[in-house]
Amino acid sequence: MTETSIVLTGAGIGQGIALGPVLRMSAPLPEPEATPSTRTPDEEKARVAAAVQAVAADLRERAGKVTGTAADVLEAQSMMAEDSSLADDVASRIDGGTTAERAVFEGFGVFRDLLIGLGGYMGERATDLDDVAQRVIAALEGRPAPGVPESDQPYILVATDLAPADTASLDLTKVRGLVTREGSQASHTAILARENAIVAIVGVAGADELAEGTEVILDAGAGTVTVAPSAAQSDEARRRIAERESALSGGLEPGALADGTPVPLLANLGSAEATEKAVAAGAEGVGLFRTEFLFLDARMAPTVEQQREQYVKLLQAFPGKKVVVRVLDAGADKPLEFLNDAHEDNPALGLRGIRSLRANEDILREQLTALAEADAATEADLWVMAPMVATVEETRYFVGLATEFGLKTVGVMVEVPSAALLADRVLREAAFASIGTNDLTQYTLAADRLLGSVAGFQDPWHPAVLRLIGEVGSAGAAYGKPVGICGEAAADPLLAVVLVGLGATTLSMSPAALADVRLSLTRYTLDQARTLAEVALAADGAAEARDAVRTAAAGFATPAAP
Amino acid sequence: MTETSIVLTGAGIGQGIALGPVLRMSAPLPEPEATPSTRTPDEEKARVAAAVQAVAADLRERAGKVTGTAADVLEAQSMMAEDSSLADDVASRIDGGTTAERAVFEGFGVFRDLLIGLGGYMGERATDLDDVAQRVIAALEGRPAPGVPESDQPYILVATDLAPADTASLDLTKVRGLVTREGSQASHTAILARENAIVAIVGVAGADELAEGTEVILDAGAGTVTVAPSAAQSDEARRRIAERESALSGGLEPGALADGTPVPLLANLGSAEATEKAVAAGAEGVGLFRTEFLFLDARMAPTVEQQREQYVKLLQAFPGKKVVVRVLDAGADKPLEFLNDAHEDNPALGLRGIRSLRANEDILREQLTALAEADAATEADLWVMAPMVATVEETRYFVGLATEFGLKTVGVMVEVPSAALLADRVLREAAFASIGTNDLTQYTLAADRLLGSVAGFQDPWHPAVLRLIGEVGSAGAAYGKPVGICGEAAADPLLAVVLVGLGATTLSMSPAALADVRLSLTRYTLDQARTLAEVALAADGAAEARDAVRTAAAGFATPAAP
Repeated sequence: MTETSIVLTGAGIGQGIALGPVLRMSAPLPEPEATPSTRTPDEEKARVAAAVQAVAADLRERAGKVTGTAADVLEAQSMMAEDSSLADDVASRIDGGTTAERAVFEGFGVFRDLLIGLGGYMGERATDLDDVAQRVIAALEGRPAPGVPESDQPYILVATDLAPADTASLDLTKVRGLVTREGSQASHTAILARENAIVAIVGVAGADELAEGTEVILDAGAGTVTVAPSAAQSDEARRRIAERESALSGGLEPGALADGTPVPLLANLGSAEATEKAVAAGAEGVGLFRTEFLFLDARMAPTVEQQREQYVKLLQAFPGKKVVVRVLDAGADKPLEFLNDAHEDNPALGLRGIRSLRANEDILREQLTALAEADAATEADLWVMAPMVATVEETRYFVGLATEFGLKTVGVMVEVPSAALLADRVLREAAFASIGTNDLTQYTLAADRLLGSVAGFQDPWHPAVLRLIGEVGSAGAAYGKPVGICGEAAADPLLAVVLVGLGATTLSMSPAALADVRLSLTRYTLDQARTLAEVALAADGAAEARDAVRTAAAGFATPAAP
Repeated sequence: MTETSIVLTGAGIGQGIALGPVLRMSAPLPEPEATPSTRTPDEEKARVAAAVQAVAADLRERAGKVTGTAADVLEAQSMMAEDSSLADDVASRIDGGTTAERAVFEGFGVFRDLLIGLGGYMGERATDLDDVAQRVIAALEGRPAPGVPESDQPYILVATDLAPADTASLDLTKVRGLVTREGSQASHTAILARENAIVAIVGVAGADELAEGTEVILDAGAGTVTVAPSAAQSDEARRRIAERESALSGGLEPGALADGTPVPLLANLGSAEATEKAVAAGAEGVGLFRTEFLFLDARMAPTVEQQREQYVKLLQAFPGKKVVVRVLDAGADKPLEFLNDAHEDNPALGLRGIRSLRANEDILREQLTALAEADAATEADLWVMAPMVATVEETRYFVGLATEFGLKTVGVMVEVPSAALLADRVLREAAFASIGTNDLTQYTLAADRLLGSVAGFQDPWHPAVLRLIGEVGSAGAAYGKPVGICGEAAADPLLAVVLVGLGATTLSMSPAALADVRLSLTRYTLDQARTLAEVALAADGAAEARDAVRTAAAGFATPAAP
């Protein structure tokens, strides 16, 4: 080709192609002017109260729609918005004749400076407070809150990086693709993209120079952003998008390798409402049903009845099929007052998952009661597992307790390195294992999976992680017990094949990712998958493993869909 | 025996016996009365200024004497004491007629409430602020600061648990033993005890009932606290203490197993001042020289000249002997403004060690320059290693860079699971490995080693941790490269034998721990050590491994010293 369009490069997520105009994250608001107010103090105070209430309600609503850190941050921000010391400070500034906008700007600013002044520990929460201030000021001025753009037309979103708060407000039906300057294969943006089958190129050095409205082509397989493509390039991109859509819409057969080895493809679900989407995408069951959504009220646990109702709803959607429910996975980074509201310096290494449930066994017992009752009332094949199991002793504890309640198939999540290293002993006690590759990678590489500065480590292709997965796979094979994968890794079409080669017997993922993985599995035999696994294990690092497997796979598979 | 003394039980640290009267941690100060001041505001403000200055200086001085989290907490507290917003608040209360004591109590209290009000993230730093307030009020009242008792006579310290701040102020020459209600084999108290060869029993349920002045006998081997012993019991304890002291004072031979296999015993040092103690205890070199003490000024790095001077001082103390220096190990939990002052939600999984040095390569280059210059000017055998290495690529980076500066023996710390899992590839690149068992255990079990609620996981006897150590040992043997242990585990006399069985070629520890370990090694052959390692690896958990090895070792060894 002789076109001279500028081509930027980055890490592509998945295999897709996308085409569209650039929309950028909107810039921060200007500083409110320090002119005297023309309203009475009472009027200004009423405006602030209304704005704060709207912002807090909005943040809380978003918190309810997401889970994990995203939810925590939003929840904490809604509390900041309604903080009474802050309200007093803002009110006293208004009494001095300041406008509502300026009073919020100054009042929040003082608290921000105080946080920064108190030092490294607390100083950096200042960013969250600034975001709240921006939202309140935007509400006062009747502007949209800064952040993700709103558009009626499909677009390519360009940003420095996407924060959980941004993600929560993104209308995914309009986003054709994502380009970020920061981020890696495992950053928040990458996870969002993979889970929703959105084309994304992350870590694009020149992303800041992409002007609003510029047409771009994203090619995830090649990791390229073609800026202002020629008509011929755009036509070629449209042709490849259509070709790919047709290849993916091949049908909803059960997951299987080229030699017919079945690899059931399951869905990761976060609420009983999402079951339809999973069934429509051909999920053969549920590999990970997260139960955190039941515990949105941080002050008290849901009743057994409330829980049972949701479990019944879920199980009824999958008669005769496997549904794996994970009991509550919470810790100090997602504080539930009744569970663990202690401050922890490193909540990812804290009293979380089975550790916190064990310290609050009544909560666990209630959840197991509700699950057993729902099981008795429905026809699905219910499996139950505990998160964050680190030791054989914890395995024995959870299996023992769940069995007491009449639950028949009781297993554990393997996401802590020690559980993988002792998989031969853990699987002696448990009926199955489900590997959470996100946390397993985080702990194996000792790198926070949500921290941008160490995002490069969060790559499940790393041979150290694959070796641990292989240990669990071998132990499962030795005992004839199932080993599922329910982390991010299962949604990567090529890595999915490697995981099967390492001994995974099922793969669970976001419903949107099922089609790509289903197609990829059909290209390799079990022997080939095992060879690819060996290739990956022999590599020095994650990038080398990915490259070596790509090269080896090209020699095996039917040509990749365009 | 027919005595009926009450015997409390807990986890004993090490093998020692101790006898003495109980002293308890002192209670908090009473609330200052809200009576009007009889001094002028200027007098009260001068008193506050003097007290704050004294407290901040004291906290900073203590911070300089310790490392790691203890130092961070103390440094942050000294900054809180001198915070200008706090000073303004206290001054305005004094202007209103309040006493200095009451103004500090109220002013700090408001800030404490503000922190708590801002929510879970920041709320729990309130405890540190309360401690600062107590210290300032104590200084104003001319009382000793609350915390560890001061005594001219040897005593047994009884506490709920020891915090790093308490530890820093403890006069170890007077403490014969420690009893805590909380804690485990790996809590802060246990580490302190092991590193200083102080007898300790932790996790003693009845510790709160031990009255001030009560005579107690601690038996670490048995894990018992005998309350108000009979004269016969006390005599027996004294006899065993004397017997043990004589067994330990056997001489300063090089470390070796019963069959003569040499196991060089090295010292962990945190400053060049501590070398004499190490030489006197028979250290055959330095296995871990921490360089953080050079970076106490958080605002700027030391110059090459300042560093070289300290390295020369260190190296001159060990002519012809091995000295392993670790380059700066810092992260967001020990914020150095010039290195990494970002907020991190999980600093233990953040930009720390080699990661932060790499992001600030000029700092690393200066340190390597100073080390190379000191090496050229002295006769010790200098080895240099990087902390927190997770990948083969990082190993290559560090070895390449250090070699560029002319350093001859360049290795890595293995404290991240991935580095242990890929030890065969890491040791292909590095000249040696040194295993940091504290962090390796923390990451392998995914449990913060400084968090009380998950302290039970922090046990290097865990077979998953031992397996990783064995991987490194095997890789070292395959390449003929040394594998040292420089974590807490090496100071446990029986575990030290297991570590040698797993392939460790040297053991490095606090000088105070050398005698016990030296004696223990002489009781087993290499074959026996390897058998004990197999026994430990086959166990289901840490406690099972310890028990199984104790039982197996009893069949091998010459009888343990009393």
